[in-house]
Amino acid sequence: MIGEKEGAGVDYLAEERAGAQFDLHSMKLFLAGGQHAYDVSKRMADLVANDPVFAKEDRVRVPRKEHYKNSLRKAGHAWKTILEQGLTEEESMKLRAFIDEPTYSDLHWGMFIPALKGQATEEQQHKWLPKAYKMAIIGCYAQTELGHGSNVQGLETTATFDASTDEFVLHSPTLTSTKWWPGGLGKASTHALVYARLITDSQDYGVHAFIVQIRSLEDHTPLPNVTVGDIGVKFGNGGYNSMDNGLLRFDHVRIPRENMLMKLATVTKEGKYIRSNKPRQLGYGAMVFVRQGIVTDASIYLSRAVTIAVRYSAIRRQFGAKDDKPEVQVIDYRTQQYRLFPLLATVYAYRIVGFWMKWLYEDVTERLNNNDFSTLPEVHACTAGLKSMTTAITADGIEECRKLCGGHGYLCASGLPELYAVYVPACTYEGDNNILLLQVARFLLKTLAQAGSGTKPVGTAAYLGNIQHLTSVNCKVSRGEDWLNPSVMLEAFEARAARIAVGCGMRVAKAPDSESAFNELSPELVEAAQAHCQLIVVSKFIEQVQKDIPGEWVKQQLEVLCNLYALSLLTAHSGDFLATGYLTSRQVSLAKDQQKALFSAVRPNAVALVDAFDHTDNYLGSDLGRYDGDVYTHLYKNAWKDPLNESVVTEGYHDYLRPVLKQQLWGPASKL
Amino acid sequence: MIGEKEGAGVDYLAEERAGAQFDLHSMKLFLAGGQHAYDVSKRMADLVANDPVFAKEDRVRVPRKEHYKNSLRKAGHAWKTILEQGLTEEESMKLRAFIDEPTYSDLHWGMFIPALKGQATEEQQHKWLPKAYKMAIIGCYAQTELGHGSNVQGLETTATFDASTDEFVLHSPTLTSTKWWPGGLGKASTHALVYARLITDSQDYGVHAFIVQIRSLEDHTPLPNVTVGDIGVKFGNGGYNSMDNGLLRFDHVRIPRENMLMKLATVTKEGKYIRSNKPRQLGYGAMVFVRQGIVTDASIYLSRAVTIAVRYSAIRRQFGAKDDKPEVQVIDYRTQQYRLFPLLATVYAYRIVGFWMKWLYEDVTERLNNNDFSTLPEVHACTAGLKSMTTAITADGIEECRKLCGGHGYLCASGLPELYAVYVPACTYEGDNNILLLQVARFLLKTLAQAGSGTKPVGTAAYLGNIQHLTSVNCKVSRGEDWLNPSVMLEAFEARAARIAVGCGMRVAKAPDSESAFNELSPELVEAAQAHCQLIVVSKFIEQVQKDIPGEWVKQQLEVLCNLYALSLLTAHSGDFLATGYLTSRQVSLAKDQQKALFSAVRPNAVALVDAFDHTDNYLGSDLGRYDGDVYTHLYKNAWKDPLNESVVTEGYHDYLRPVLKQQLWGPASKL
Ligand SMILES: Cc1cc2nc3c(=O)[nH]c(=O)nc-3n(C[C@H](O)[C@H](O)[C@H](O)COP(=O)(O)OP(=O)(O)OC[C@H]3O[C@@H](n4cnc5c(N)ncnc54)[C@H](O)[C@@H]3O)c2cc1C
Ligand SMILES: Cc1cc2nc3c(=O)[nH]c(=O)nc-3n(C[C@H](O)[C@H](O)[C@H](O)COP(=O)(O)OP(=O)(O)OC[C@H]3O[C@@H](n4cnc5c(N)ncnc54)[C@H](O)[C@@H]3O)c2cc1C
Ligand SMILES: [Ca+2]
Repeated sequence: MIGEKEGAGVDYLAEERAGAQFDLHSMKLFLAGGQHAYDVSKRMADLVANDPVFAKEDRVRVPRKEHYKNSLRKAGHAWKTILEQGLTEEESMKLRAFIDEPTYSDLHWGMFIPALKGQATEEQQHKWLPKAYKMAIIGCYAQTELGHGSNVQGLETTATFDASTDEFVLHSPTLTSTKWWPGGLGKASTHALVYARLITDSQDYGVHAFIVQIRSLEDHTPLPNVTVGDIGVKFGNGGYNSMDNGLLRFDHVRIPRENMLMKLATVTKEGKYIRSNKPRQLGYGAMVFVRQGIVTDASIYLSRAVTIAVRYSAIRRQFGAKDDKPEVQVIDYRTQQYRLFPLLATVYAYRIVGFWMKWLYEDVTERLNNNDFSTLPEVHACTAGLKSMTTAITADGIEECRKLCGGHGYLCASGLPELYAVYVPACTYEGDNNILLLQVARFLLKTLAQAGSGTKPVGTAAYLGNIQHLTSVNCKVSRGEDWLNPSVMLEAFEARAARIAVGCGMRVAKAPDSESAFNELSPELVEAAQAHCQLIVVSKFIEQVQKDIPGEWVKQQLEVLCNLYALSLLTAHSGDFLATGYLTSRQVSLAKDQQKALFSAVRPNAVALVDAFDHTDNYLGSDLGRYDGDVYTHLYKNAWKDPLNESVVTEGYHDYLRPVLKQQLWGPASKL
Repeated sequence: MIGEKEGAGVDYLAEERAGAQFDLHSMKLFLAGGQHAYDVSKRMADLVANDPVFAKEDRVRVPRKEHYKNSLRKAGHAWKTILEQGLTEEESMKLRAFIDEPTYSDLHWGMFIPALKGQATEEQQHKWLPKAYKMAIIGCYAQTELGHGSNVQGLETTATFDASTDEFVLHSPTLTSTKWWPGGLGKASTHALVYARLITDSQDYGVHAFIVQIRSLEDHTPLPNVTVGDIGVKFGNGGYNSMDNGLLRFDHVRIPRENMLMKLATVTKEGKYIRSNKPRQLGYGAMVFVRQGIVTDASIYLSRAVTIAVRYSAIRRQFGAKDDKPEVQVIDYRTQQYRLFPLLATVYAYRIVGFWMKWLYEDVTERLNNNDFSTLPEVHACTAGLKSMTTAITADGIEECRKLCGGHGYLCASGLPELYAVYVPACTYEGDNNILLLQVARFLLKTLAQAGSGTKPVGTAAYLGNIQHLTSVNCKVSRGEDWLNPSVMLEAFEARAARIAVGCGMRVAKAPDSESAFNELSPELVEAAQAHCQLIVVSKFIEQVQKDIPGEWVKQQLEVLCNLYALSLLTAHSGDFLATGYLTSRQVSLAKDQQKALFSAVRPNAVALVDAFDHTDNYLGSDLGRYDGDVYTHLYKNAWKDPLNESVVTEGYHDYLRPVLKQQLWGPASKL
């Protein structure tokens, strides 16, 4: 029935691939972080793609209850697979990632166990970890309440010590003290790591962590005086709705004293509170690790959206047919490139920053082991800023990719709506992005003040030791190609970041009340923080491309992407660069022209540059982003699977449509 | 069981309301566009809110089939209500808007009937409109195909005239010619207005419109050789999934010759194609009307998100508790204001532009009746640009409001995820926003060229007749308050828009091939178009606040919002203003300070300024945005309605969770 033209996309992509100028396999290895990581990823991606239990196409079509049940099945099956095949921790993590559906096990492995490791004494770890490792208990991380998320110190749940029984009494004194949001809590977990105010001897010692069993290990019913349930539907069809984010209330629930996590503080039998002399900073290593994961994930999520948008843009043709030649591929429109290629470069940038953060984690860990806390404030600020920036840009970037696909991007079949819905809470959890940037700004102000009194800034803040130079120098660019000089680029980002920070610092210093001056100036402080974070990414990208990188033309392509990344930021934020007086408008204009030259350098490699992410069709889950480019055939075929198409005449016809068409709206039989 | 603190939000909002400085009722009348429109809206909003058939809370929880069936029921019930109560067209439109669920009747009334009116002869209208008016037929608008959306001239469906039977033969020759997207087509419509290439005497006369019956009026089955169905799930839980966007293929389907809409062209019995001598521009009036509706809708959708975010930000407290005082309302943080208040001002701005566009529509209609086509290019560009700009900002603004609500914004109970998902395709349909801006840019270049040869630009482009002045003058601002001078503000936006346009114009003029220069320069051209559109909105807002406006302090508040709107654009796009040399960085810095002073002026009125939108709780559909501020009670109560909470022990427990917990993953009984 259907004529020619099918599979037209196939040829387009083949042509694109043939025209690429760099060695694809070397680029894949570079992005994976080496042969071993590449092999693991490939093996796990294929394992998931080939196991029908992990099929995910249906998830936007089934009701939530079924969707949730399916996710329990997948989590159980994943666990079985891990045990059967004796997968390593690295492999297991990858396996879960490729299943691509949030579930209780993410929290169990990603939050509950790490928190135990970080905050429990060795004795406590000995008691709890073996059970957790074999999933004989399932744990969640119950911190946020209805009334408090960002302000953890404001949590209201109480854990009051009762010396007479050697127990803590957990209680939810107000509506707003209801635990609210913890993933896995709603329906799956047997245990919760509950953050509550520790009260002993009528004194409030602030928020501490307690292990609380919430469901029976026999029949899964909630324990007495525990109220627990799911908090309801979230953004997106499938998305995060496979997760049972939960609510939890305690009505004087008793737990043994030993269930308080006691690495950093203890309560004795007698109810005496004793803070340990272990430095609290020990927990920072874990935080760096988590944030490194977030930045790497940002790169992966964005890479999925960019893969879909680049491939589809190469297949989609619209307008401009001339002299028997087909229409223009929309990827050839400069506006499409202007929106899409900087995102492609961003994926590479974040990937490289992720590698660097792995090093940073090791460095911090080693320092902590040696009781060297000197770099912590800088590391804290840097990773907070990178978390904020990469998640914000990635979320917006996914949506931009969706819009770049025109109408078809709005179908779940494009894979993009779900990708956005499931990713976007990363802007909110693990620290609200706005609040994190304000933390970075505080660090910058402090660093500037300390630099003024002789303390040399370290690491990513080192440039703030160079204020004199950075606030007086002018950009040397006189021709467009000058922008390709790494030291020129670096200086521009350093000068801009330094100048905004100094400007803010002077205004806060002058103010009588520095706290209210901080609030007053916070929009500018956010800009200072963003400039700082952009500088970090640009500088790490530049550092990377100055190293040797194997593979024909791989390094050259990365250089193009690095310059494109930096120039795209620069032109998008030209107001900053101009206002601080570092650049002239002519230099900005040269930057824009140079940016377009880079678009042209990316264009023939665009499809190969997304092929290098090496995503399976299964993982992408997109009819538009298919490797084979056979877009229209699959959109058409898959549409028929919608539940609405199960019956030819729609179910509501007799009750609700026919009466309209036949003007039979009234009468006893009418259902209207 | 639950202690104190409930309803705490109630008091916060009451205090906020008591502190407002302007007359709320007068502002409501202003925003509604007068007493009559206000009354109609109120009556229809209440009618919907009080009729349980229109309840919408469940829509994110039910499976799509049920959701769709419910929407059919609502549409039928709305129709019954309209007939029973003898509602006017104005009332009916409002009623459908407040039901707040896309459905086939939107397309029937909003596209099918208007297209008949615009493109059918009087005789044809006589035949078809009475049936359509009583809904004895249901029509949809079938233009877009799998392969072509933006490029309408590229559509592939054919309508070949067969003189031997006096019929057109409709056919879908390729896969990509499949009609794809038309709302109401998938399951509801009996008729489609099909856009197809008219072929007669072996000659292709391009795309024309044909009325095609697609389903039986007796039993609703598809007619022979018609393949029709739904295209599948779209972004969001409920959202646009109540709509049956459809696909449609013809296998040589015959329709009478008279089913071609013949106002602008006819085909005779003999197969001769005759273009009428009626000017094609007559259709432009309808286009202005549609775009006016889109801009007004943008204001309404954004107002819903802003209402929710402002109210919740006044209720939400986080950090900063001091000396027994409660924590800070997050609306008091400058970063929150910086993100939220410009959006509040934007709602007012778009509302005012919507009013102006109503005037524009009347003006154009009158001119067309007098065969005066002189303003059409300007009107076309202006309305295209405003469609693009207002829908883009509104979509992003809704998401920003959602993020401003922290974690709780991610719950569908906040109302915001659905609002975004259902709104965002406005960026794509009725013209892809990017393509529309490129059209505006083409108009600007042409206008500049014509102005160079003496043709005076008109209407919103009049400033381009003043190039000499605008490209040489400098901004006069020397103190922050100078920014409050309307003529200062206007000149700034005119100078910036003019300079960007002139810069592009010169580069395109210099180029040997102007078409490829246009593509090359298109990112800058998009900026030129945006600057032009922002100028239009700023200037219309300024014009409005220079008129008399009744009600105590209403005019003053609008002045504050007008200045805030303009300054927020100016500071966000400072790069343009600086690069064109019109502003100094000191003047930008003064603008930022002045902007904060305006935040402070808005702050005590913020809650009243959203109350003025007069949304019912039903229409908002948000636990966070409730008028009474009783946020936490309702979040908590409504969570229990989730299907996952129907059973205490979750449905998948025995099959998928227990085997994990009990290490019983293997064996014949295992479902894992
Ligand atoms: C999908 C998802 C999963 C989650 N999983 C878990 C989990 O497993 N366990 C758990 O415990 N929690 C979890 N959470 C909760 C999450 O950690 C919180 O939602 C998050 O910390 C944000 O806090 P909030 O909602 O209180 O935001 P709020 O602090 O209320 O933010 C509201 C607004 O106020 C602004 N604001 C607040 N304070 C300031 C300030 N000082 N200065 C300037 N602006 C300010 C914010 O920027 C924001 O715009 C999850 C949340 C989501 C969405
Ligand atoms: C919810 C929804 C409802 C709809 N309802 C209807 C309906 O009732 N009836 C109907 O007929 N249709 C309907 N449509 C279809 C809609 O009109 C089209 O999807 C829309 O016109 C966009 O066209 P496209 O998908 O072909 O985008 P494309 O043109 O394929 O756009 C893809 C990308 O290419 C870019 N691009 C394309 N051409 C150019 C160019 N010349 N220069 C620069 N960039 C370019 C675009 O900017 C975009 O980034 C609906 C769509 C949606 C999402
Ligand atoms: Ca759903």
